[in-house]
Amino acid sequence: MIQVVIVGSGNVAFHLHRAFLKAHGVALVQLYGRTSASFSDFDQSVPKACTLSELAQADLYIIAVSDDAIQGVFEQIRSLKGLIVHTSGSFNFESKTDGNRTGVFYPLQTFSKTRELNFAGIPILVEAAHPEDLGFLRTIAKSIGALPENSTADARNAVHLAAVFANNFTNHLFFLASDICAKHGLNSKLLYPLIQETVAKLEILSPKDAQTGPARRGDRTTQIRHVELLASGIHQELYKLIAHSIQKTYEKEL
Amino acid sequence: MIQVVIVGSGNVAFHLHRAFLKAHGVALVQLYGRTSASFSDFDQSVPKACTLSELAQADLYIIAVSDDAIQGVFEQIRSLKGLIVHTSGSFNFESKTDGNRTGVFYPLQTFSKTRELNFAGIPILVEAAHPEDLGFLRTIAKSIGALPENSTADARNAVHLAAVFANNFTNHLFFLASDICAKHGLNSKLLYPLIQETVAKLEILSPKDAQTGPARRGDRTTQIRHVELLASGIHQELYKLIAHSIQKTYEKEL
Repeated sequence: MIQVVIVGSGNVAFHLHRAFLKAHGVALVQLYGRTSASFSDFDQSVPKACTLSELAQADLYIIAVSDDAIQGVFEQIRSLKGLIVHTSGSFNFESKTDGNRTGVFYPLQTFSKTRELNFAGIPILVEAAHPEDLGFLRTIAKSIGALPENSTADARNAVHLAAVFANNFTNHLFFLASDICAKHGLNSKLLYPLIQETVAKLEILSPKDAQTGPARRGDRTTQIRHVELLASGIHQELYKLIAHSIQKTYEKEL
Repeated sequence: MIQVVIVGSGNVAFHLHRAFLKAHGVALVQLYGRTSASFSDFDQSVPKACTLSELAQADLYIIAVSDDAIQGVFEQIRSLKGLIVHTSGSFNFESKTDGNRTGVFYPLQTFSKTRELNFAGIPILVEAAHPEDLGFLRTIAKSIGALPENSTADARNAVHLAAVFANNFTNHLFFLASDICAKHGLNSKLLYPLIQETVAKLEILSPKDAQTGPARRGDRTTQIRHVELLASGIHQELYKLIAHSIQKTYEKEL
């Protein structure tokens, strides 16, 4: 039985803890959080620690805290036996930690506590300072149904940037679209079938081939009218810049 | 039996023709396109016309051509009996056409010929210069399983702008995300579970509440590193502007 400790009580820690409780071959032996209150949504049967010096012996320590706190946690637990990984897309351990058994276990997904999440089919990018630890991390990923992908810091940092475009920025565009509807007294749910189809199309068309709309067609009249309809200067600039980026993308092909 | 003629041979015309062939109570009596070759993917049993003067008598003429061609087509067929509608989100008939029975039948969806499309649950915004034609347009929308929504030109133009954000611009972000993956030797399919979850989240969280990421958290270190990772000046500007727009959105709340 592989013994795992999770350090953190945020969304990633929450969903990993849920997944490990159901996983075969893995025992979640402890959770660490600064206060016991931070675990109110977590399974009550898992032992909790509120100071890092109390951490139990384990095969794997998963540091699932904010990027700026990872190195600090690591410094306090680096003397422990067991592999120590973080779950961040953009953080890289300082190079002087290479002597330790460190690694990365980065699930490429967006997490909210309010939404049930199944790791089945979700890529987890794995890295290890000592290559012999890679197979171990792949086993852990598979134990929760995820798809392990061997990665490097450079590739992971790039994937994290891609994820910001595909998730954070896309979500902001959904917000702007909903906001336009709301300002004109329309229910933003009207847009959902369109949003669903936008994503479903990716199954058969690359996003490059799926591109449509006034910017793709070079329809200046509609673009000018759209910019005028936008109430805020930032959103007008955003419209113009994304439209410009679309035009540049297809111009190169001509 | 309601008799319908579709003017146009593009994606919207194609999917409406397929839907009407299966609809109850509606007969698709003719398709118009400038050349017979434009109908190679269309049902061969529907009569075709290549000049507007050949148009058959019908209850409804649906002009599904590019925005800049709609008014021209209308001028050539306005003497016909029957209601004449267009399918555009942004085009508005010139006001002098109000004497005619005109209207709008705007399906809020993205269309590609290569992808099967079911109108079930898809909103169709309907407008009519003569209010007594609205019920007729709602019946037509329902005949193909769509959800008719009474609209106005202003509301429709706003929805079209929202659709540009929710579909065209979002798709461009998917392209940029795929492109980042490709440039780092990664399969962009890794991003699909994340993209699917981004959309699935909208069922339980508003996009405003679902927002996460470095811009939302005000994580400057990650944002600076991301901008450095981007190869093109336009994409760097795009990153900075969307991140700025996210920050502004949540700043107002404080």
